[in-house]
Amino acid sequence: MKLLSGKEIKEEIKVGLAERISSIEEKISLAIIQVGNREDSNAYIAHKKKFGEEIGAKVSVYTFSERTSEEDVISQIEKLNSDETVHGIILQLPIPEYLDEKRIIESIDTSKDVDGLTSYNVSLLYKNKKSVVPATARGVLTLLDYYDIAVQGKNVVVVGRSLLAGKPIANTLLNRNATVTICHSYTENLDKITKGADILIVACGVKHLIKENFVNNKQIVIDVGIHSVISEKDELEIPGKKYTGDVDFAEVSKIVSAITPVPGGIGQLTVACLYENLLDVYFEARN
Amino acid sequence: MKLLSGKEIKEEIKVGLAERISSIEEKISLAIIQVGNREDSNAYIAHKKKFGEEIGAKVSVYTFSERTSEEDVISQIEKLNSDETVHGIILQLPIPEYLDEKRIIESIDTSKDVDGLTSYNVSLLYKNKKSVVPATARGVLTLLDYYDIAVQGKNVVVVGRSLLAGKPIANTLLNRNATVTICHSYTENLDKITKGADILIVACGVKHLIKENFVNNKQIVIDVGIHSVISEKDELEIPGKKYTGDVDFAEVSKIVSAITPVPGGIGQLTVACLYENLLDVYFEARN
Repeated sequence: MKLLSGKEIKEEIKVGLAERISSIEEKISLAIIQVGNREDSNAYIAHKKKFGEEIGAKVSVYTFSERTSEEDVISQIEKLNSDETVHGIILQLPIPEYLDEKRIIESIDTSKDVDGLTSYNVSLLYKNKKSVVPATARGVLTLLDYYDIAVQGKNVVVVGRSLLAGKPIANTLLNRNATVTICHSYTENLDKITKGADILIVACGVKHLIKENFVNNKQIVIDVGIHSVISEKDELEIPGKKYTGDVDFAEVSKIVSAITPVPGGIGQLTVACLYENLLDVYFEARN
Repeated sequence: MKLLSGKEIKEEIKVGLAERISSIEEKISLAIIQVGNREDSNAYIAHKKKFGEEIGAKVSVYTFSERTSEEDVISQIEKLNSDETVHGIILQLPIPEYLDEKRIIESIDTSKDVDGLTSYNVSLLYKNKKSVVPATARGVLTLLDYYDIAVQGKNVVVVGRSLLAGKPIANTLLNRNATVTICHSYTENLDKITKGADILIVACGVKHLIKENFVNNKQIVIDVGIHSVISEKDELEIPGKKYTGDVDFAEVSKIVSAITPVPGGIGQLTVACLYENLLDVYFEARN
């Protein structure tokens, strides 16, 4: 069994990003919009901010209270859209349900949409045109490339169909000519379907859903899930938390040909890929 | 073997559309943009025009020569966008390659995009929001509903990933909670994958690709392909042509549980569903 670690890839990307950023005269800048005060969002944002600052980018966080109006959020986004010193804008999800998430996302200028969530970017991905690939999906592609795992013609099963993970992962792999099956909570005989995959990508947000009977011994398994298990001090994705994935690593790793660990797998790459998107849109806008 | 005919469904839809249109004071109007003079496009447009006029709609065709500039086409679309007496606009595809198809499609007002091809509508479909479903995909859903074929949790294999057929079919069925596998020209072991489907939908544009060894005896097969075989006078999708599908009907129909014929299957429904889209956007704009 080969362990598909994300750590060294992350370090390589980080060095590359820092070099590229240092060669740019302007200060590369990302704006993060947060509505509310969710603990997990705070941790993710702190992590993005730390990574960004370590590579020399400026990261500004705009925090709104739980009772903020849609107009206030959109008005801030519009200011950032027209601010030439800001190169990327992300809305930290989830946001409170009373807000129209779609409307707020659509207000982000597509040339600063580094999460690739506006209709414009979603539609480019769907149509297999050059687009901003959401960071998690880009992380999956990056890992596959790093370990020279070809997907063309392969039977790829994606478990999960969220807009941030499952759907963009499925679409990017389809664009790379994989045969893609999308499974979800309504899927019947999930274990049989996942067992038939050449590459199994799990992004359903159900802890340890994938057990030994879901996999085969030639399979490559990529676990996109992150679940905190206990609150112990640890050197993991977010300091102070301990994590596990959608795959029961202890069971599955004994069987399959290759697998990503959690932590230390895809989670390592997501933030790095967000900043790759930021640099991409920066250069795209200047071409 | 049950034959899933589209003919009676088409007649029912047609009667319903005519009734609804007769109850509207305004003249319901569709504009079709054609660039060039392809024989197949001419036939499709004539068919759409005839159907539209039979149900009481006004259908205007704007034909541009092969050498028309993008600006001329877009300028015509913009006129139609702002013309309140026009309720739907379609660009007859394919268009000559020197034109930027995406740019022309995006110039169509999303509220008149009855083919559902603008980024806005594509993104709604992708995000499982209420959207204009491209007519072929709507035809597939209509046929499934008419014959009470449930898709939730079922293993649906879609062969083909075009923007007009395969992708919207896959996305609408995923939105209905089917487990969806998308196959295409790079797919390895296609026959094994199609054989495992509960419902097999073929929209790849390869005549008789699906043979007896691609199917099983519990399977429902929906053939979206249309290939003209000889130019004989006949009462078919377009008068004067004889058609066959992506499925080898003679072989496959002996095995499977249910199958759509070509002609007389999905092809019957596409134009009817285009006009259902037209009425939907008409009422949507007035709500």
